[in-house]
Amino acid sequence: MIRVALDAMGGDGAPGPEVDGAVLALRELPADFELTLVGREPDIEAQLARHPAVDRSRLRIVAAPDVIGMAERPLAAVRKKPNSSLVVGLNLHRTGEVDALISAGNTGATLAGATILLGLHDGVDRAAVASPFPTPDGSVLVVDAGANVDCTSKELVNFARLGTIYMRDLVGVAEPKVGLLNVGEEDEKGGVVVRETHQLLKLQPRIRYVGNIEGRDIVVPHPDHGQIDVVVCDGFVGNVVLKFYESMGGLVTELIRRESPALLESRELQPLRHFLDPSAYGGGPLLGVRGVAIICHGASTSIAIKNAIKRAVASVRHGLSAHTAAEMALHEPTGAT
Amino acid sequence: MIRVALDAMGGDGAPGPEVDGAVLALRELPADFELTLVGREPDIEAQLARHPAVDRSRLRIVAAPDVIGMAERPLAAVRKKPNSSLVVGLNLHRTGEVDALISAGNTGATLAGATILLGLHDGVDRAAVASPFPTPDGSVLVVDAGANVDCTSKELVNFARLGTIYMRDLVGVAEPKVGLLNVGEEDEKGGVVVRETHQLLKLQPRIRYVGNIEGRDIVVPHPDHGQIDVVVCDGFVGNVVLKFYESMGGLVTELIRRESPALLESRELQPLRHFLDPSAYGGGPLLGVRGVAIICHGASTSIAIKNAIKRAVASVRHGLSAHTAAEMALHEPTGAT
Repeated sequence: MIRVALDAMGGDGAPGPEVDGAVLALRELPADFELTLVGREPDIEAQLARHPAVDRSRLRIVAAPDVIGMAERPLAAVRKKPNSSLVVGLNLHRTGEVDALISAGNTGATLAGATILLGLHDGVDRAAVASPFPTPDGSVLVVDAGANVDCTSKELVNFARLGTIYMRDLVGVAEPKVGLLNVGEEDEKGGVVVRETHQLLKLQPRIRYVGNIEGRDIVVPHPDHGQIDVVVCDGFVGNVVLKFYESMGGLVTELIRRESPALLESRELQPLRHFLDPSAYGGGPLLGVRGVAIICHGASTSIAIKNAIKRAVASVRHGLSAHTAAEMALHEPTGAT
Repeated sequence: MIRVALDAMGGDGAPGPEVDGAVLALRELPADFELTLVGREPDIEAQLARHPAVDRSRLRIVAAPDVIGMAERPLAAVRKKPNSSLVVGLNLHRTGEVDALISAGNTGATLAGATILLGLHDGVDRAAVASPFPTPDGSVLVVDAGANVDCTSKELVNFARLGTIYMRDLVGVAEPKVGLLNVGEEDEKGGVVVRETHQLLKLQPRIRYVGNIEGRDIVVPHPDHGQIDVVVCDGFVGNVVLKFYESMGGLVTELIRRESPALLESRELQPLRHFLDPSAYGGGPLLGVRGVAIICHGASTSIAIKNAIKRAVASVRHGLSAHTAAEMALHEPTGAT
């Protein structure tokens, strides 16, 4: 039985989408997991009361009276609020009571808390927030999508390694294609760190590195290599592109609405609108930490929470943390600064 | 009479779209300009032969036998090919024979060539490639979109100043709203350079700085400030986001095609498809150089070339270069590193 903890107080609408997502997961997903909702018990019970038919045998509540807000300083919040739902949830994971933690709350606090309380695998200097960007045929993992605004070449190479393991374990891609996000394909493109990373990635024996790629190659197939599986970049660029991508749904909707409001509501257009709706996606993994931690969008719907639970269960089942530990113990990349 | 030179050999399909665009401009735009096509005379004449009705009184050809390719190293190409269409065109501008230059060729070479041959305004350390991103109600200028992968805070502040003047002169926005692209709105977000830039921008008296913005605020109205007019970022981030945005047309088309090929061809969807087609846009200005230089997409259509000519004429008419010189003579930003 895989045990997943869910920070019930994290998202913008907490605990509504969290509890609804938990109920959906218990009802729809294979029954190989149990859930722990962490947060304010009365608030959680009030939401659960709307679902009298839910199977409580695989659901428990662990009380945590405090909440870390979206605007709080991550490290300070983690230190000052040991009774927050996030910190209590992470401690359940740290002590082995659960196998994974999910939060739709303050990303920086989840990152800082997981780094401190779960720790990093040997060989990992900083954890990365990976984001699976939807593509027409699946997804591409962008690493880093916001955790580290400045990165060394060694860190960027490690993002490639971490992303490779994730795509292999979770998506089943035997040899994930890795691209380094740059402003052109040639060796001399980019700043010092990116150029150095490009050379180092060529030397990694267990990474299928296709080379520098450009912004146009992230979610659309590369002309030579097809769809890339792992896009490596620093967290500044990754975060800007992620949020830009998230804004495309609103842009496309607005443009169609101006031309034809009826078209917007047509059946044929719903798949596109759904595709471009970030609230439906199931969160991104925090890579490099010991254990399994998944960060969801603050605006996550119950379906996104359900999908994050599914992803957490799969991460535990496939041994993501153990595989990451094994890979990172191999002491690459050679010669990085 | 405003005199515009067009590098006829620059784009991917040169000189076809260039010559066709020139013909369109002569036919459709107000007759306050004359055009110089620079390039291989036989090739240009062969294209012109398809337009026997064109008004040759406002069109001349200046021969240039060489062409700088898209993959050539910018600085070396400019130095080694004085008889290339780009360098000959820039020299026409340098010596005052024309008032503006347009090229759809090698961006780096145009940047390097313009910096060397036209020179930079006093107070400008590096020119910027600005890119007008289309928005539902107009455009937002992203500066820098690819010229400078590493920037100092002083350079970023100067991008804000250059972009402000451009949006005032060319788009008629009296007080353009400037946002600094970052990973969050708070003062402490971003790396050292971005944090320093954020503080410096607050001190600029002639810039309407709204603060840090995120990727989602580039082409969609900001929740507090509405549509931003100038987005400041380094050329690495700007280039990645530009190319990512350019890939959205293909992505949206593919998603709709899978659901309903008929819908894709429907009249109601054409405005969206046109909006997301980067080949239709009229190029971005090179800001900070003495004079007027406009860089077009390599895949520019004749309509994009026509629009670039229109933009070049407007830049000259509104005195963009003189206004830029006056602003940059004011010796800000104070205290930047």
